Amino acid sequence: MSSPSFDFAPLLHHSLPAPAAAWTGFPAFNFVGGHNDADSIPVADLLSAAGRVIAREGSTLATYGLSSGPLGYAPLRAFIAAKLAADASVKCSAEEVLITSGSLQGLDLVNRILLNPGDTVIVEQASYGGALNRLRGLGVKFQGVPLDHDGLRADALRSTLEALRARGVRPKYIYCIPTVQNPTATVMSEARRREILDLSEHFGVPVFEDECYADLTWSGARPPAMRAMAGAERVIHIGSFSKSVAPALRLGYLVADWPVMSRILSVKNDGGAGALDQMILGEYCLAHFNAHLPRLRATLRAKLDCLQDSLREAFGDQAQFDDPAGGIFQWVTLPEAVDTSRLAQVALQSGVAINPGAEWTSDGDSGRHRLRLCFAHPSKETIREGVLRLAEICRREFGLPHQATPKHR
Amino acid sequence: MSSPSFDFAPLLHHSLPAPAAAWTGFPAFNFVGGHNDADSIPVADLLSAAGRVIAREGSTLATYGLSSGPLGYAPLRAFIAAKLAADASVKCSAEEVLITSGSLQGLDLVNRILLNPGDTVIVEQASYGGALNRLRGLGVKFQGVPLDHDGLRADALRSTLEALRARGVRPKYIYCIPTVQNPTATVMSEARRREILDLSEHFGVPVFEDECYADLTWSGARPPAMRAMAGAERVIHIGSFSKSVAPALRLGYLVADWPVMSRILSVKNDGGAGALDQMILGEYCLAHFNAHLPRLRATLRAKLDCLQDSLREAFGDQAQFDDPAGGIFQWVTLPEAVDTSRLAQVALQSGVAINPGAEWTSDGDSGRHRLRLCFAHPSKETIREGVLRLAEICRREFGLPHQATPKHR
Repeated sequence: MSSPSFDFAPLLHHSLPAPAAAWTGFPAFNFVGGHNDADSIPVADLLSAAGRVIAREGSTLATYGLSSGPLGYAPLRAFIAAKLAADASVKCSAEEVLITSGSLQGLDLVNRILLNPGDTVIVEQASYGGALNRLRGLGVKFQGVPLDHDGLRADALRSTLEALRARGVRPKYIYCIPTVQNPTATVMSEARRREILDLSEHFGVPVFEDECYADLTWSGARPPAMRAMAGAERVIHIGSFSKSVAPALRLGYLVADWPVMSRILSVKNDGGAGALDQMILGEYCLAHFNAHLPRLRATLRAKLDCLQDSLREAFGDQAQFDDPAGGIFQWVTLPEAVDTSRLAQVALQSGVAINPGAEWTSDGDSGRHRLRLCFAHPSKETIREGVLRLAEICRREFGLPHQATPKHR
Repeated sequence: MSSPSFDFAPLLHHSLPAPAAAWTGFPAFNFVGGHNDADSIPVADLLSAAGRVIAREGSTLATYGLSSGPLGYAPLRAFIAAKLAADASVKCSAEEVLITSGSLQGLDLVNRILLNPGDTVIVEQASYGGALNRLRGLGVKFQGVPLDHDGLRADALRSTLEALRARGVRPKYIYCIPTVQNPTATVMSEARRREILDLSEHFGVPVFEDECYADLTWSGARPPAMRAMAGAERVIHIGSFSKSVAPALRLGYLVADWPVMSRILSVKNDGGAGALDQMILGEYCLAHFNAHLPRLRATLRAKLDCLQDSLREAFGDQAQFDDPAGGIFQWVTLPEAVDTSRLAQVALQSGVAINPGAEWTSDGDSGRHRLRLCFAHPSKETIREGVLRLAEICRREFGLPHQATPKHR
């Protein structure tokens, strides 16, 4: 509708991000976002689950929360409790599980009950850009702690907590992604988890454990969650089905003790997560989740192999990377001359989308010549072609990589 | 899990509502909440829609936003645009419609981009308790404007806006529920809508138009939305499928010009509304929505008749009420001696849940002896028995109504 304009600008909230640009479809070579492999969506099994559960329980759609109350669809919560016990040694009942609209809502709810502007939280030095952005939006300071191959470094965490304590600052939580860390894709060892929890106790700082990728280790195994260990009362645990079944479903979960959960429920005034999503996923998972995962992991691993081969071919040894323990992204280090924020801007104009490392690191600087490449959604052909194009653009902008002389084919 | 306790209290946000109580099921006589008639959920048609759309488009679940982008599932948006044109004379394209997780998310998004703590907004003197609670939580002042049978009173709105202007206050918006007002269930006349929009222009204050009940007028007709009138650029319009199809679905929509929409999209970082909810509802609506509504309206009208008969029987002429133009609730005035907040507390102990008028009025006082009764979910038997119990409890607590001598059977 063409209409005269009214100036909303003087009425806006004093602190907003820049307006969104109109959506014009996904870029042709899309290496960003948690999208997944389209052929791995279990369409037939979701369809039969939908048929069963809608026929059986469809009339419960007449009530907010179905017949399950504010925590969410009870059969799905029961599945999650059993799954967490089997996979991650977490002992919890279905009454300690809250269904959220993706793990993103878990982030928002925890932030809502714990964070005031000006507060401080601890994050991993390289961390999920969406979590860092949320903290910025809330006016919350975050202090990054370096990682190694076992995850968040306990020695560095201790120093950070001591330095903050010396300044009279008690951080609100330690946010970490222990299993398939985002973006480094490492798995925090069990011993390291124990150390982090001990520091949490010593300094009186809760752990905010984001295990949204934990179903996607190549081995299928994962260490016990910190929520499973002594000290679990200090741990708020979130997880997701976005990576293991489908991102568009918008279903995650949160596990916490009642003093936290009762606060979260008091501010969660959204009327619940989408009911058909919950019902169909709950019905699906009981019958099919465990058989689905190995197939998905194999598909993702094959795409990752393709990505790594393509990187070696296009960038030679100028793209450095470790082999992820699982997941849907590869963290890549380029020579220091390459500013990946600029690379991302230029590449997008040619239809190649990447996450510049500055957006995925707490300090920005340490990610300046790094990038994150998501590989689950594009086809292998698109991965190959996209990486080749990225290398060409990088060469044009930064003179690197040198003309392709592949060394590791 | 029984665990030692950790004291989260010193870490909590400085301003939180009281912790939630554990959920113990719905009360036996539940006259609160936007629940709907369970037998009216179109289970068979939802089921066939699910079968078609999952088979056809299930693999699009692999991407956030499906293939439709951040505004939500495109076929559902197209349906909404066509429906708003046909029913409410709103001219908008599917690209001006945002799918939200219920109209509640619409409230949250508009509040997020427009409101700072300390701001002022205009509301109807009797209004939706959930909207008022949100404003309280944000530290926003709201000023109530009285209603009459044609809706928000234009003369009173002008006085209020003048008084605020004299104090240098520019309210951020005028929030109103024009069609089947909550809780009075009146319909704002077309002439009154025009007057409100003219005042909006004169004082430079946008209109926030909540039409979430507009599908449920008994006649099936509704006046043009303010979003359809000259001045629409100042109107943010929201609506919902919670009342017309099923509350558990969590699907609503928002219509606004791009300067507003682009701001909303920039803060809407939830990954989208539940995809199966969107897909199945979109598929369902194209084939069945228009045929479904008359059946639902007839069912609701019959339950309302039962409620009104029950009120006359149990309260005689001591319960005063107007006949709603549609919807799922009855606004009732009791004698001034009755404090409905206390009545609600006592009644709940006997399994009878009501909305006390103080929670549904901007000043509290004008609702002190009023209550809202939702009638869509309970059966007619439950309605009759619940109203009888409520009258008994009221008599025990307040000596009113006098022993039943029904006058209007």
